[in-house]
Amino acid sequence: MLVWSNMKNFDNDLLLRVLRGERAERTPIWIMRQAGRYLPEYMAVRAQHDFLTMCRVPELSSEVTIQPVDIIGVDAAIIFSDILVLPEAMGLNLVVEEGKGGPRFTNTIRRKSDLSSIHAADCENDLKYVADAIRLAVERLNGRVPLIGFCGSPWTLFAYMVEGKGGEFVHARAMLYEDPATAHEVLQLLTSSAISYLKMQRAAGADVIQLFDSWAGVLSPRLYEEFSLRYIKQIVDSLRNEVPVIVFAKAANHSLRKMGDVGASAVSVDWTISIDEAAKTVGGVVQGNLDPSVLFAGKGTIRSEAEKVLAQAPKGRHIFNLGHGILPGTPVEGVKTLVDFVKGWKAFERN
Amino acid sequence: MLVWSNMKNFDNDLLLRVLRGERAERTPIWIMRQAGRYLPEYMAVRAQHDFLTMCRVPELSSEVTIQPVDIIGVDAAIIFSDILVLPEAMGLNLVVEEGKGGPRFTNTIRRKSDLSSIHAADCENDLKYVADAIRLAVERLNGRVPLIGFCGSPWTLFAYMVEGKGGEFVHARAMLYEDPATAHEVLQLLTSSAISYLKMQRAAGADVIQLFDSWAGVLSPRLYEEFSLRYIKQIVDSLRNEVPVIVFAKAANHSLRKMGDVGASAVSVDWTISIDEAAKTVGGVVQGNLDPSVLFAGKGTIRSEAEKVLAQAPKGRHIFNLGHGILPGTPVEGVKTLVDFVKGWKAFERN
Repeated sequence: MLVWSNMKNFDNDLLLRVLRGERAERTPIWIMRQAGRYLPEYMAVRAQHDFLTMCRVPELSSEVTIQPVDIIGVDAAIIFSDILVLPEAMGLNLVVEEGKGGPRFTNTIRRKSDLSSIHAADCENDLKYVADAIRLAVERLNGRVPLIGFCGSPWTLFAYMVEGKGGEFVHARAMLYEDPATAHEVLQLLTSSAISYLKMQRAAGADVIQLFDSWAGVLSPRLYEEFSLRYIKQIVDSLRNEVPVIVFAKAANHSLRKMGDVGASAVSVDWTISIDEAAKTVGGVVQGNLDPSVLFAGKGTIRSEAEKVLAQAPKGRHIFNLGHGILPGTPVEGVKTLVDFVKGWKAFERN
Repeated sequence: MLVWSNMKNFDNDLLLRVLRGERAERTPIWIMRQAGRYLPEYMAVRAQHDFLTMCRVPELSSEVTIQPVDIIGVDAAIIFSDILVLPEAMGLNLVVEEGKGGPRFTNTIRRKSDLSSIHAADCENDLKYVADAIRLAVERLNGRVPLIGFCGSPWTLFAYMVEGKGGEFVHARAMLYEDPATAHEVLQLLTSSAISYLKMQRAAGADVIQLFDSWAGVLSPRLYEEFSLRYIKQIVDSLRNEVPVIVFAKAANHSLRKMGDVGASAVSVDWTISIDEAAKTVGGVVQGNLDPSVLFAGKGTIRSEAEKVLAQAPKGRHIFNLGHGILPGTPVEGVKTLVDFVKGWKAFERN
């Protein structure tokens, strides 16, 4: 069996080695949302273009994708994009207005009759710009580090499609109770679309895939299993022989054991569980889980808190990351301090 | 020892009996944030007065306090107020502007030097309006059901005081890592103020106290124990011989066992854990935990989801409630359906 074919040679393949269960001489680090938000170099590009243009123009998205590799020195790049471009390709109308909260959809899926307004994503046409951005980013990375592609989990995308915007996702949750059949129909359509979207990303050059279940936390364990985890498993099943997959769910540590069972190469956890308990529960490779607010503290505090995570994590089965996306306004110096500390952590060898 | 002195006679004392561990013939129900938001009768009063006036004028707050007893038929009233009036009495400047997000403070506590701008609350003077509202509400309830007083947890109030507004509380979290000594100083001042505030509420006629740790979920288990739970325990220790105390923490089920150990009469849980698992973990009386979004579904769904909670909960050691405050826009008919169903649930007797 050809597992994770088309393996390339990288100057730094630490992330891939940990995901494959191979020996690594130190803990790799990358940072969720590392491209954007806090980097002056990102802000300079962003000042010239609106957010969706940044996503849609491969020259721009590939440029900001590689910035943190150049500037911060992380061990992987992650393609700059937004999880909502997939539902957009399925028929929803995505708008991002400056200073008016987060992105939103002007049409929503609230009942069975709304299904007529959505369709499976035609990724090769409507999301070709993502594949192009990945190809360009791979070219620009030039073998330095692997590139991560990504997608929102079906539940997280569903929550946005039903609600139209971020928040408590009341209507999305109510639909699970009131009309589970329609919910499952939408989730299945999202799952198929996500699979072709991610296969396209893989074909374009993504070396790793991460699934973001950002809104897992608003579900009870019972609903999480029925409406989120089973679709995540479908995606992992379809991809795991082609590419390593990392699954991240925010605020759903109640289901961590089941998350460990879906067959992903790693499970990424938030900061509301200790990384050693997470590792014991998951069983395999874990990613995470420094509280993103630590990066607002001084250098000494950043190092000592990072060390707590490193010391507790299972050596060789840990990818350092934050417990959630890096926060807007995070001081760049703090991020550099973190990355340098993790890369230079000497105690790794003594364990 | 005189435990919970000044016991009054109530037409309906189900809530108190469950909290005392006495026999109750059915499960009592009340609803977090039951006064306000979704009731047309509340909105009619609110249309005439801004939010803070509603809190500060005892005639108004006591009026909306008893509305859900009259209209919905809940087994307890909870005084209409806001958790932020306590930090306001400690020196912060609270503003609520219509349509501009939630309440906020125009001054904040970000560093040690900011401590000079706050002081212990002089409750008898600066929060006398809350005591007056409680006295009026007790009079208007006229012995029908008990009245619940409340306060935010020190951590939750601290988070608001540092940040100035709701959100991810990044600066509050960062301060716990960077300057724990100052954080503890503020938390201790909040704790002493909360204790005198709650003793005043008790003296004015509150029959039960609930502590709301609404922002528990942004802390790791380690920080939660050090910066939230230990102060909650101080409050419970100071009050438990005078009045039953219910502790509610949102999104902190990782620490449920420790929450069960603080000596409260009941622990209230959100909907991200099954109520039977919560009861086993806590050991005593549990409150909760229907997903508030269920009330947006049809009557049949509301009844079947409520029945799942009732069937799983320990009979006689359960107070029915939502897993969080009732959501704005919740249909009143749904709330009535829920309350009627819980009050009429026949299977209680068969267990």
